[in-house]
Amino acid sequence: MVATAARLAPRFAGRAAAHDDAGDFPTADFDDLRQAGLLGVLVPPRLGGVGAGFAEYAAVAYELAQGNGATALVFNMHASVTGAMAAVDDGLAEALGIPPAALAARDTLLRAAADGAFYAVAMSERGAGSRLSQLATIYEPVPGGFRITGAKTFVSGAGYADGYLVAARHADDQQVVSQFLVPADAAGLSVERSWDSLGMRATRSDDLHLAVTVPASALLGGVEGLALAVAQLAPHWLVASYAAVYVGVAQAAVTAAAAHVSERGLGRLPAVRARLGRADAAVAAAHQVVREAARRVDAAPGDPETNRWVWRAKLLAGTTASEVTASLLEAAGTSASRRGHPLERLFRDARCGSLQPATSDVCADWLGVAVLGGDPDADAAAPRW
Amino acid sequence: MVATAARLAPRFAGRAAAHDDAGDFPTADFDDLRQAGLLGVLVPPRLGGVGAGFAEYAAVAYELAQGNGATALVFNMHASVTGAMAAVDDGLAEALGIPPAALAARDTLLRAAADGAFYAVAMSERGAGSRLSQLATIYEPVPGGFRITGAKTFVSGAGYADGYLVAARHADDQQVVSQFLVPADAAGLSVERSWDSLGMRATRSDDLHLAVTVPASALLGGVEGLALAVAQLAPHWLVASYAAVYVGVAQAAVTAAAAHVSERGLGRLPAVRARLGRADAAVAAAHQVVREAARRVDAAPGDPETNRWVWRAKLLAGTTASEVTASLLEAAGTSASRRGHPLERLFRDARCGSLQPATSDVCADWLGVAVLGGDPDADAAAPRW
Amino acid sequence: MVATAARLAPRFAGRAAAHDDAGDFPTADFDDLRQAGLLGVLVPPRLGGVGAGFAEYAAVAYELAQGNGATALVFNMHASVTGAMAAVDDGLAEALGIPPAALAARDTLLRAAADGAFYAVAMSERGAGSRLSQLATIYEPVPGGFRITGAKTFVSGAGYADGYLVAARHADDQQVVSQFLVPADAAGLSVERSWDSLGMRATRSDDLHLAVTVPASALLGGVEGLALAVAQLAPHWLVASYAAVYVGVAQAAVTAAAAHVSERGLGRLPAVRARLGRADAAVAAAHQVVREAARRVDAAPGDPETNRWVWRAKLLAGTTASEVTASLLEAAGTSASRRGHPLERLFRDARCGSLQPATSDVCADWLGVAVLGGDPDADAAAPRW
Amino acid sequence: MVATAARLAPRFAGRAAAHDDAGDFPTADFDDLRQAGLLGVLVPPRLGGVGAGFAEYAAVAYELAQGNGATALVFNMHASVTGAMAAVDDGLAEALGIPPAALAARDTLLRAAADGAFYAVAMSERGAGSRLSQLATIYEPVPGGFRITGAKTFVSGAGYADGYLVAARHADDQQVVSQFLVPADAAGLSVERSWDSLGMRATRSDDLHLAVTVPASALLGGVEGLALAVAQLAPHWLVASYAAVYVGVAQAAVTAAAAHVSERGLGRLPAVRARLGRADAAVAAAHQVVREAARRVDAAPGDPETNRWVWRAKLLAGTTASEVTASLLEAAGTSASRRGHPLERLFRDARCGSLQPATSDVCADWLGVAVLGGDPDADAAAPRW
Repeated sequence: MVATAARLAPRFAGRAAAHDDAGDFPTADFDDLRQAGLLGVLVPPRLGGVGAGFAEYAAVAYELAQGNGATALVFNMHASVTGAMAAVDDGLAEALGIPPAALAARDTLLRAAADGAFYAVAMSERGAGSRLSQLATIYEPVPGGFRITGAKTFVSGAGYADGYLVAARHADDQQVVSQFLVPADAAGLSVERSWDSLGMRATRSDDLHLAVTVPASALLGGVEGLALAVAQLAPHWLVASYAAVYVGVAQAAVTAAAAHVSERGLGRLPAVRARLGRADAAVAAAHQVVREAARRVDAAPGDPETNRWVWRAKLLAGTTASEVTASLLEAAGTSASRRGHPLERLFRDARCGSLQPATSDVCADWLGVAVLGGDPDADAAAPRW
Repeated sequence: MVATAARLAPRFAGRAAAHDDAGDFPTADFDDLRQAGLLGVLVPPRLGGVGAGFAEYAAVAYELAQGNGATALVFNMHASVTGAMAAVDDGLAEALGIPPAALAARDTLLRAAADGAFYAVAMSERGAGSRLSQLATIYEPVPGGFRITGAKTFVSGAGYADGYLVAARHADDQQVVSQFLVPADAAGLSVERSWDSLGMRATRSDDLHLAVTVPASALLGGVEGLALAVAQLAPHWLVASYAAVYVGVAQAAVTAAAAHVSERGLGRLPAVRARLGRADAAVAAAHQVVREAARRVDAAPGDPETNRWVWRAKLLAGTTASEVTASLLEAAGTSASRRGHPLERLFRDARCGSLQPATSDVCADWLGVAVLGGDPDADAAAPRW
Repeated sequence: MVATAARLAPRFAGRAAAHDDAGDFPTADFDDLRQAGLLGVLVPPRLGGVGAGFAEYAAVAYELAQGNGATALVFNMHASVTGAMAAVDDGLAEALGIPPAALAARDTLLRAAADGAFYAVAMSERGAGSRLSQLATIYEPVPGGFRITGAKTFVSGAGYADGYLVAARHADDQQVVSQFLVPADAAGLSVERSWDSLGMRATRSDDLHLAVTVPASALLGGVEGLALAVAQLAPHWLVASYAAVYVGVAQAAVTAAAAHVSERGLGRLPAVRARLGRADAAVAAAHQVVREAARRVDAAPGDPETNRWVWRAKLLAGTTASEVTASLLEAAGTSASRRGHPLERLFRDARCGSLQPATSDVCADWLGVAVLGGDPDADAAAPRW
Repeated sequence: MVATAARLAPRFAGRAAAHDDAGDFPTADFDDLRQAGLLGVLVPPRLGGVGAGFAEYAAVAYELAQGNGATALVFNMHASVTGAMAAVDDGLAEALGIPPAALAARDTLLRAAADGAFYAVAMSERGAGSRLSQLATIYEPVPGGFRITGAKTFVSGAGYADGYLVAARHADDQQVVSQFLVPADAAGLSVERSWDSLGMRATRSDDLHLAVTVPASALLGGVEGLALAVAQLAPHWLVASYAAVYVGVAQAAVTAAAAHVSERGLGRLPAVRARLGRADAAVAAAHQVVREAARRVDAAPGDPETNRWVWRAKLLAGTTASEVTASLLEAAGTSASRRGHPLERLFRDARCGSLQPATSDVCADWLGVAVLGGDPDADAAAPRW
């Protein structure tokens, strides 16, 4: 699958400038992903998927991002939905009290992904950000299912996905946060075209408005109130895989800068070589940390030491991508700052990395607490959920 | 005039997002500048102008840039033309051998500026950059004047100016570089709409194609071959005044970030305060260096120590603007990365600062040579002209 | 006086390595300062002094620091004592309720300084740092004067000064903090030789133990409880003048690195030139901010905008000195890291700058609060006093 | 062996301050290393050693450096001698034309190392640095062996080693550079106590003066002129293993800073946590790069891609150690800048990392050339040998 992703990346790269310019969704990229079977990369083989682990997935994301970071980010949301579902094994299901019917519903969703269904995530809200404990979207039980009402922001792939993972809290109990898989064609679901961003423009991370009724089977896990527990068990899906994408973006910038500098004969300038050399080393380092984090997610997901690697990965990927693309644009010079030049786009795309949750400053704080032997959940300036 | 500029800046700021989005010229800003008499800021009072010195002009540029950096950059080109002309006093005129007729022609141009004429600069070329010794645009004497043939890039205000300062070398002698004031309505002058940049989009720094014949009076100084001498005497016009613009852009980012952070209630986050505080200090420092450089340009233009201050100003303004806007965008968060948000635009505008000649790396090299007691003209990795 | 300081600096530089190595006090430097009349630089002419303002003093400190930063730091403590005393004009005296006898006592101290007396400051304590509100040293009224008991740390010049400015709080009222001028020969005053620091080793900032009785005239201002009010009026003495010293240290490093690089013929290496050039620009910028801060201290001491400049100066001087010396040591190479080489010492000296109160992080926080329109006294993470 | 090294590190740490203060050799540390069998870590089992590969050795070096970086640096020189010898397998021996007698002599040296002999490296010279092609130390054949004459600098462990690997060029042919193992008791070998460094003071990297005659068997490889070929085959010994040491130093600083901050209760300050968190991430990243480089050295020594990892490791280790220790000292505050405090020493030790060849600037240049597809041997500003 990594080789497949590497094969697709140049195609994505060829389309990236146009999608960035228009701010439209990379539909053809997703057709390629679907045909290559990558939408099922994290679906177990018994359900028709590839059954990749997190480390392999992170390697796929890194390759895809070298083609188009926006495509990789949207794909990452799909991967987080399918990966989190696939990670619920029998032991965890029993521990969380997930009933058999919910596991069957889960299998149906995963099988659909293996067949090409594409899921998006609708978690963030204005005001709450991505903090589950602060959500304003509510749900209430209705006969045969649930009624969900609210609005979501930053829903990457909004209007293009086949289903949305929606987080909502119980109307009567702020402590109970649940997740639902809402089909794209649900009555009362609408997309507001609000996305117009500095970078990662093709993600179409628009607003989603919800006034929908879903059947009981749409409740993920079949038990209310699981969202926070799952989030705490699987921070890598909210943090680490972003990191792989942004390191891919940074690596793409090194490649693009080297091509530009070679073509223009600027390699004779020592300051240009120094910028390229330092960028190469910084990207390689961030990449190694992402790989180590991903390896540990597979080996010991949710472990405190694993989480530290996840935060390191996110912190380094975000800051490295931003600094490296800024420096390489300076190495390449004015001609590379023309709109449509790969470095121009990568510079804007990369700047978004450390803004996405958990931000660089938040990761640094959590890591600092951890270095001191504290508990980031309890002691940090910014709460984790 | 500084107070006038400060008064205009908010108007410019109100129009900046739209100009940036469309990439079109800030015509209304220039109408404001004209009406306020700012096009004559550097024209001597005897010719109807304000007669400001370089330091006062730099203060004006800093204020205007807080409104719209692109407007300030275009205005800076006009200022460099009028300022360089106005700086030729009797002593210099005699030293350079400028005949009375040429001084009269110069006065006519300056008087027109005081009356609202706006001049642009057509110096850079693909391949040569802004290095006068490498120009491909040529001129040759024809009866009654000169024939100029070639193409220029990065002509800020192209298509909107009333006249262009065109640098060209003699067709038969590569060492002889001269400058001409070509009227905008000259037959054979055309603009190619090529400008589509990451930042400073409203400068309309398009390409200019020239196959024009100008009268003898269009030759600046009335003597051929003065361009290089003037450039060496007045590096501040090619370097220092950019610095004032980019510090203004950086200061605008501090102001915009403070407003955004206050509005969103993010000021309680220590990491946000730290970013604001460090940005405030960095911008204040760069501003002080720009002011000192400008003060010295008035006192001892072209002096080696003055030039060092000019390079320091350019280096610090470019790097500070780029770093500060990147950090403040991180402080403000995702919502400030939406297109049209002031910080989003300022981040892109600022990135252009250290790419413009002399680049940060080139300034650092020149300064390094100077620190070692060497001569940047002779010893630097990149030649100055 | 600035010229005098510049004349003395090379002498100080010649002695600096030996003082640093042995960690002993620069007695000969102080003899030079005394003979040159510099101990009275801030003493009004009517009392035999020079009557310099803060800006002139900051320029003196900058020059002295280029010779030996440690000498300049100790001198700065003397300057803060004499400067703060001299700044109490009639209006302020009346506002604070200072009786005539106290003004006369103050005049005696200043006249002594003009005659060569040298004062040190004993404010910091383990635990309290330099926060006046947290002092553990106490005083209580006794017949004819006061009894002061406690211990102080970081008393630069301890054992060499003629008198110590000691801050203590009233034994019965924690809110009342007063300052006393304790003569060096007071019974019960002893120095503990604890100073053995990474840098600024020659300051002999040892511990001072106090179990002394002083006459009533030793109470500065003649009224108890003035210490906090004075500190709030004059933050420049606790912050800004450090900045001048550390910029002087950084400038000395540029000079030393240029000499070393020239001598070794390393100037042909582009990376070396780039480090020198960037260092030169950074030091020039920090210097300009120190000058602007000093200028404003003279014009509007204690003003909120003045304080912002003071914090900017301290922040930039500390970080610049540290970063610049680290980079220049890298430019100069291994041979410059030998003990006794100027760059080796300056690197260690410079590292202390941003550690001294207010630290860089604290200054950044205060500035951030101020940028947001807040009050650093009320809203900052670290209280100012 | 890694566990053994981790067990020894705290003992080394306990002695480090005293060795640093006196600048004397860590004899007890080497006794520990000898007794633990670590001097034979790279010696093949058939000769009584451990037979570790480069990756395992790098892990050992990282652990030892957390105890005392100076000890680890000296040990690294020994490791480079024994490791390079052990790396000559039959194929390489044949390719280089090494005669059986020389292999036997090599085996004797390695067996002695396994028994506790400790070797130092005498390569650098004033003027030539570590560039083999510029050496001034010469040798000439004499009956039964060779006469070596010259002086070496930076000979870590000078006066404490049992033998010295001495690089010299043929008296009559500048192109022929050979290496000799000179016993410590050779007549005409003397140590000049010149070492007095900012950091890594306990390495005793003194000068070595040579006017010695050695038997023919002292010529490493038994063939003259092999030095340059070996250096080009094994750049990891001159570059990569330094990296492991400096990452260990940086990690020790994180540990020491966390302890200091916890003890002083400074962990509540957000700026302190941020510094710790960013330091933790930076050190983890540099460590991952060192591990990857070491892994590749085992898999494909001398390969161009391996060399790129080696340069990345050196660049990142040097810059990270320097920046991290400077930042952590700022987090810990003035009390940690007292001589003898672990952070104070680690700050000085760390600064030396990027000064040691290949310096950070040189590594950046080589990497920049490689990114552009060039050949660092041919195209870089600084030649590699």
